[in-house]
Amino acid sequence: MATQQPPWSQPTRQSEEPKLKVYNSLTKSKDEFIPKNGRHVKWYNCGPTVYDASHMGHARNYVTQDIIRRILVDYFGYDVHFVMNITDIDDKIINRSRESHLLNEFRGQTHVLSQELVSDVQNAWDAYLLSDLADRLPEEDQPVGDETPSSYWNKILEKSKNAVWKAEILKKKEKFDMQLSALRKGREALATSSTLLKQGETSKENSIRLIDDSQDILVKTLDKKYGGTVTDPALSRALAQYWEGKFFEDMDRLRVQPPDTLTRVTEYVPEIVAFVQRIIDNGFAYEGDGNVYFNTDAFKASKTHHYPKLQPGNTGDDDESRGARAPGQRSKNDFALWKRSKPGEPFWDSTWGPGRPGWHIECSVMASAILGDNMDIHSGGIDLTFPHHDNELAQSEAYHNCGQWVNYFIHTGHLHIEGLKMSKSLKNFITVDEALRQYSARQLRLAFLVQRWDLKVDFTDSQMTGEIRTIERTFDNYFSNVKAILAQHDGKSAGDGKHRFGETEQELQNFFHKTQQTFREALCDSFNTPEAITALTTLVSRYNVYAQGKDLNVSLVKRIALWETKMLRMFGLGEGPVVEGEIGWGKEQRDQGAEPINKTEVIMPYLRVLSSFRDGVRRLAIENKDGAMKEILTLSDRLRDDELLPLGVQLDDQDDGKALIKTDIDPEQLMRERDEKRAQADAKAAKKAKAKEEERKKQLQKLEKGKTPPSEMFKPPHVPEGTYREWDAQGIPLTDGEGNPLSKNAAKKAQKDFANQQKAHQEYLEWQKSQTNT
Amino acid sequence: MATQQPPWSQPTRQSEEPKLKVYNSLTKSKDEFIPKNGRHVKWYNCGPTVYDASHMGHARNYVTQDIIRRILVDYFGYDVHFVMNITDIDDKIINRSRESHLLNEFRGQTHVLSQELVSDVQNAWDAYLLSDLADRLPEEDQPVGDETPSSYWNKILEKSKNAVWKAEILKKKEKFDMQLSALRKGREALATSSTLLKQGETSKENSIRLIDDSQDILVKTLDKKYGGTVTDPALSRALAQYWEGKFFEDMDRLRVQPPDTLTRVTEYVPEIVAFVQRIIDNGFAYEGDGNVYFNTDAFKASKTHHYPKLQPGNTGDDDESRGARAPGQRSKNDFALWKRSKPGEPFWDSTWGPGRPGWHIECSVMASAILGDNMDIHSGGIDLTFPHHDNELAQSEAYHNCGQWVNYFIHTGHLHIEGLKMSKSLKNFITVDEALRQYSARQLRLAFLVQRWDLKVDFTDSQMTGEIRTIERTFDNYFSNVKAILAQHDGKSAGDGKHRFGETEQELQNFFHKTQQTFREALCDSFNTPEAITALTTLVSRYNVYAQGKDLNVSLVKRIALWETKMLRMFGLGEGPVVEGEIGWGKEQRDQGAEPINKTEVIMPYLRVLSSFRDGVRRLAIENKDGAMKEILTLSDRLRDDELLPLGVQLDDQDDGKALIKTDIDPEQLMRERDEKRAQADAKAAKKAKAKEEERKKQLQKLEKGKTPPSEMFKPPHVPEGTYREWDAQGIPLTDGEGNPLSKNAAKKAQKDFANQQKAHQEYLEWQKSQTNT
Repeated sequence: MATQQPPWSQPTRQSEEPKLKVYNSLTKSKDEFIPKNGRHVKWYNCGPTVYDASHMGHARNYVTQDIIRRILVDYFGYDVHFVMNITDIDDKIINRSRESHLLNEFRGQTHVLSQELVSDVQNAWDAYLLSDLADRLPEEDQPVGDETPSSYWNKILEKSKNAVWKAEILKKKEKFDMQLSALRKGREALATSSTLLKQGETSKENSIRLIDDSQDILVKTLDKKYGGTVTDPALSRALAQYWEGKFFEDMDRLRVQPPDTLTRVTEYVPEIVAFVQRIIDNGFAYEGDGNVYFNTDAFKASKTHHYPKLQPGNTGDDDESRGARAPGQRSKNDFALWKRSKPGEPFWDSTWGPGRPGWHIECSVMASAILGDNMDIHSGGIDLTFPHHDNELAQSEAYHNCGQWVNYFIHTGHLHIEGLKMSKSLKNFITVDEALRQYSARQLRLAFLVQRWDLKVDFTDSQMTGEIRTIERTFDNYFSNVKAILAQHDGKSAGDGKHRFGETEQELQNFFHKTQQTFREALCDSFNTPEAITALTTLVSRYNVYAQGKDLNVSLVKRIALWETKMLRMFGLGEGPVVEGEIGWGKEQRDQGAEPINKTEVIMPYLRVLSSFRDGVRRLAIENKDGAMKEILTLSDRLRDDELLPLGVQLDDQDDGKALIKTDIDPEQLMRERDEKRAQADAKAAKKAKAKEEERKKQLQKLEKGKTPPSEMFKPPHVPEGTYREWDAQGIPLTDGEGNPLSKNAAKKAQKDFANQQKAHQEYLEWQKSQTNT
Repeated sequence: MATQQPPWSQPTRQSEEPKLKVYNSLTKSKDEFIPKNGRHVKWYNCGPTVYDASHMGHARNYVTQDIIRRILVDYFGYDVHFVMNITDIDDKIINRSRESHLLNEFRGQTHVLSQELVSDVQNAWDAYLLSDLADRLPEEDQPVGDETPSSYWNKILEKSKNAVWKAEILKKKEKFDMQLSALRKGREALATSSTLLKQGETSKENSIRLIDDSQDILVKTLDKKYGGTVTDPALSRALAQYWEGKFFEDMDRLRVQPPDTLTRVTEYVPEIVAFVQRIIDNGFAYEGDGNVYFNTDAFKASKTHHYPKLQPGNTGDDDESRGARAPGQRSKNDFALWKRSKPGEPFWDSTWGPGRPGWHIECSVMASAILGDNMDIHSGGIDLTFPHHDNELAQSEAYHNCGQWVNYFIHTGHLHIEGLKMSKSLKNFITVDEALRQYSARQLRLAFLVQRWDLKVDFTDSQMTGEIRTIERTFDNYFSNVKAILAQHDGKSAGDGKHRFGETEQELQNFFHKTQQTFREALCDSFNTPEAITALTTLVSRYNVYAQGKDLNVSLVKRIALWETKMLRMFGLGEGPVVEGEIGWGKEQRDQGAEPINKTEVIMPYLRVLSSFRDGVRRLAIENKDGAMKEILTLSDRLRDDELLPLGVQLDDQDDGKALIKTDIDPEQLMRERDEKRAQADAKAAKKAKAKEEERKKQLQKLEKGKTPPSEMFKPPHVPEGTYREWDAQGIPLTDGEGNPLSKNAAKKAQKDFANQQKAHQEYLEWQKSQTNT
């Protein structure tokens, strides 16, 4: 018996697996993607500077990165490590947080609308007008000689009616209209306040209104005066933390997956200091006047290094046309790695004195800390190419003494809105929140998917309501058609003796397999998502032709629809949980108002409340101090009013000691009612306190009147000197100042007043006695 | 300005991507997997013959194929086309459906218990005994001459007591015991019916009972008489359809994904006829007596072909030891492609007259119809290697005139139960339904995952309750720990100025990345799932060490847990829909009744617990009695142990006074542990109480003894009447009952006893006093 296997031929590929190529900013070409370590991909992405709401520019950038990331992970099956930073040290963050702090302090110290406050605001307004605003205008429009703010203001108002003049200013990127309208508002507030002051309307409310209406201008004076004293890093950190939270909320709504690893600059300052020191030690940076600069000349002179790599030649000469050098800077091309601390800035200690990191260094340090001395992919918006990424590369290659820190640098293209660069002054500035009120996350993602990630995207309403909606509807119709066919044939396909796999099925199947190939080739071609989406819609069209026939092969129909579903979901276009074997976009649970399917998520807030209540009660019971019972009662009130209400749960305490539980109640409504009740209770208590105080005052006045003994009441100083001349033994007057006897009426009145005072004095003495006793 | 990019070096791989190798039955070695067409993989899998409930052998085979398929699709990202057939023409299907049809007909025609019916059954029984059963026994045990059925039956019953004789028969794969017991049952039914008939109990019910109890034997006579008339293909198709439905239900419960394309033999008969014709045309088959046979000699003689490829040499000579040739067969090695129609079989028309397809041809035809003249993978259970797969290869290569129709042939290994081959006679036969009543789909899949797919698996209860449950629990604990940590740190990680990425994190991260690599290498090594599972559990162990530390990096913890989740789900171990970013096995929705989750319903039990705890605490605080604090502590223990545990929530009280909340825990398990602890505590307390009670009794006995005042102790009734005659003033005896003075020793003893009693009585009095006071 022969036991040797017959010969076997290794299969020859009829068509090669397409290789993934990536458009690489370092070569300006599509390079084959070769991760250094098997299927592991190290990726660092430049994250946001968090000081304001995220906008469509962010959406374009982060959604695009998210799509590429999903393709690498979920389609190509790479083990990707996606690292992103949060820039939480930055001029804008520092300034905004300092200004907001100064304004809050100023508000807190202001109690009435005073002449002083009005003058402060007037001065701030004048100063702004004659310096900050004037500085921004052409030389011929600056104030002349000792021009008064008032006349200057009128001059500018007059000029601003001239469109050509305004356009000129706009060219300098000045948001002139906004500035003018802020000034107008401030000026009006000032006029109103002056009037109010004259009318004696000096309430705190009025003072706060003036501050609020003038805050943009007022804050500049405050900053000049007190800004230098504000250096607490907690202020900027709090602002950054708030906007970081908002950023991730927006990203979540856009279905952008959170990064695998998130780094924050404020958490990496010691690492930054050490990193900068090593660049100095390696001979590529120097200290000057408490700053540290990167030595671009030394770096360029080194044979293994190039600068700037991404935009070669994009550095000027070190000439005077570029302004004066900064303190300690040797060349205008040298950029700061470490900035000496300035007044009004948070600072950290370093070898070179107190200061803070330069902008570019953070990414070098954090990326190196997490990913080491080399990475496969670095990404960011195209705006960051130069100087940020070029400087980052130089720093890192200077630190690691290597020639290629990043192997593939990918930059997402610009975003335009209706053909123009997005800007607040052009009134085409759209926040993510605004965009999501108009379009769904799926529509926005589709808008980016049908464009090449590395090219400019023009976001227009006509495209959104036209092309994008059409593509979406194509899939909508497709899925509902397939579902209807499947429902119709459910369970009917088996055992009727007919296999339904004829020529048309063979054709459709071949087209399907070809589409899978086309789709793969598109994604291998530097993530060409527009072509990939076209492959999907073309297959839908082909299916639509097939679906007009009879005796459809349900299993083939289902198989194709499952693949379409999987690919759309892979792009992050699906909604809600993925159910194996389910066709279509899926169901977003939050949009339906239905509750998230994850039970833990649902019950966790309640469990946290329960557990922390128990923690509190337990602690008090263990400590067993005086007054613990009262504290326990306070805890249980707080549980009811402050913790459960916002979760939409109302506990109604009943007489039998068993609270009634109400759920599914609008928390807003509940909290509003609670606050109203509290306000009413507060008002009642205040009224009561006021009445009590008035009563007390009245009583005091009365008592005060009784302070004078009746024997003294007709004598100075209780009556003017010389009112009477003679008195009887009790001290009742007998004659007036001239010595004439008092009239009968006057004498009678004196007698009556005396008797009253006797009574009042007696009461006074008794009260006095009671006061001494207590 | 230089605009040329500086040089870029293509990255050099530090470690190559591991290449997928597959153990190939065609080479008996692991071959690099090279799909012929890019990433498209054509795969044909031999499906079941559907005539009975699926069993653990099916589970092993189809779950294993499913795991490999999921790895190819969801891990390696191949575009796989998975085709499977259903064998619905087969001797067993035909016979069962025909017999069941004949019995039903017979039942339908029987209305009373008649002498005729009893005789029919008696004859069937006699015939079976003297022919079918006798045929199966050794020659020396056959009926002698005109032996009556009755005496023959007694002879066999006698012999069946001999173990050696029975073992001999068992060797011939005869299920002798089952046959014997069926015969006994039939004989008893017959006796009973005769009696009933004599008593005039001729109801239809009694007639049906006789038929049911004798059906296995009765059907053989019916088949001999009428079987030849039953040829309607609808009969066997209906049976096949029923069991096909059951098969897919079972597969669904095992989380085996349905095939992309399903083919049924009954639907492919015209294609089969054409296919066979072409093999004849190609010179590799011949018609003989209405049958068509494959010409193995011609095929072997051809230079480009080999037979049998998978088990070379596994064909015997064409000699007489292998029995007579079938009608029209030229060599015993020639197998049937088309079988001439026999009476009692469904048939289809063909060039060679009415008939039906041979067993092997179906797979060749259907695989070719869907996948064409070549496929990447063919799979099936190892039992099918020879002759089925070898004949299938020969047929297809003869048809397509090619040398290699299948590139990779993969065979799943055998399944043993408790060390033995599964068989009904060994009573270790387990249906999928039975297995799923004892173990979950996840546990069954895990049992196959921890074994190599191509090796024999031994399925044992000890492994299921030991190793498998341990692995499952490892992941259970891991997920609940991670969830607790994430819940605790929820929202707390941002902005505390601390990055938590120290050496231990770097180490854990490196280990994680190494694990991803190990995992990939394992799967590339011919889908080595045992090693892949070990990689996952080893990472869990490493995490567990890390989790004992402080200041955990939540993002790293989460990232690892998400990957573990994804890989386990990839193996089909997850349950219910996939929620992006969710950790753990998931939740099966159908188990819950698939109702959409009503939030109120979900949270209400927790709110009830919370509110009643608050009620209790509040009542105690308002009453403010002594010991209230202790009661509050009891309440909070009860909340933890009695109220939250049954809801699947565990509060772990921590030293800092803040309890850690764990959810998604098996309440049964938790309560079992709690009860064990309590039982231990109860036992301890009972022991203590018992000791205390004994101490108390001892004390009481002692006190009881002291109850008698010493002055009375020597007088009746404390001593028998007449023990003493005279006493001193204190009551100490002076003379005995006769009036004789006490001996010196006796007097001394009396003195001593008196003194002891004095002391004891004093103690008694004091105790009595203390009892009165309290």
